[in-house]
Amino acid sequence: MEKLKQMIIDEGYVIEPDILKVDKFINHQMDIALFKEMGVHFKKHFNKQKVDRILTIEASGIGIASLVSLSFDMVPVVFAKKQQSAITGHTFYSSNVYSYTKKVNSTIIVDTRFIQEGENILIIDDFLANGQAALGLIDICRQAKANVVGVGIAIEKGFQEGRKHINEAGVDVYSLAIVDSFLDGKVVFKENNEEL
Amino acid sequence: MEKLKQMIIDEGYVIEPDILKVDKFINHQMDIALFKEMGVHFKKHFNKQKVDRILTIEASGIGIASLVSLSFDMVPVVFAKKQQSAITGHTFYSSNVYSYTKKVNSTIIVDTRFIQEGENILIIDDFLANGQAALGLIDICRQAKANVVGVGIAIEKGFQEGRKHINEAGVDVYSLAIVDSFLDGKVVFKENNEEL
Repeated sequence: MEKLKQMIIDEGYVIEPDILKVDKFINHQMDIALFKEMGVHFKKHFNKQKVDRILTIEASGIGIASLVSLSFDMVPVVFAKKQQSAITGHTFYSSNVYSYTKKVNSTIIVDTRFIQEGENILIIDDFLANGQAALGLIDICRQAKANVVGVGIAIEKGFQEGRKHINEAGVDVYSLAIVDSFLDGKVVFKENNEEL
Repeated sequence: MEKLKQMIIDEGYVIEPDILKVDKFINHQMDIALFKEMGVHFKKHFNKQKVDRILTIEASGIGIASLVSLSFDMVPVVFAKKQQSAITGHTFYSSNVYSYTKKVNSTIIVDTRFIQEGENILIIDDFLANGQAALGLIDICRQAKANVVGVGIAIEKGFQEGRKHINEAGVDVYSLAIVDSFLDGKVVFKENNEEL
């Protein structure tokens, strides 16, 4: 997706060896027109199966997933929570997610009412690095006996293992921009056969 | 807003004396069509000033604010963070927010790049109870010397003090549904002069 790549070049910046900050348009301030256009690209790719729900994870996946839903007939968007807010009497699917950045294990949960057996679920997130969050969401879908249509990502760090792990789990990954490396603080994108 | 009230009646449920759960359509699973329609109502009310940015707070304000932006020419949406994610070299406005539910003080932050002096900021959130989160966001706007257009809320607990405190701060509050009381676990709405 050329517009996203151009915004990463113009507005993104690199801190430490491999942290790309896109807080100006993705995960602190959000560019709503950009998110809406992401939905058009995801729809173009994930067009073989009807999507019943979109699943993401708080907090920075929520904005993108909400706008992407507009391209999928406004299906409900469910966001996995990092902690249970209050006793509700309901049951939850949960999965453990290890954060390489923060070096901690955390548990993500989704109320069992919001993913049903046999449904087609599209997973959307802002970043893919080691793939732990996406694998946790796939795990939750499989606990629910739902079908994962695929994982749609805004920015993938192509030099990390996320795509490999998700493909090994038998799930398709589609990323709108794939960062191949950081060269002197500049972003180098990976070329892709499919129009991004 | 009749559709929201009807969904609260049909899909909401009350736990403990005064906790209204709307996790089926607002803050765990999100009804995207509903959020989009909220934007139309907010635009009808907050129509006197041009809105430059929408400000909300993670996590459950993000989905609503993202869809509401569609009714305000897709202005950028900024979400206040509950903790700083990584050293960025940037400066932040911060404000202390006391949670009556959790009985803890927390700090919310917004990068100084994302609210500029003289801008018109519309604050959006899912719930208004004691108003602490909204007051924290107003405080941050005033640190930035920005103008607060108003506070737009999906569901207000009319029996708590939030509206009073925000009005005392000189800011207009507009809520799409105002809960007056819970009677035997059923929601009683407050009548409002303005069409909700």
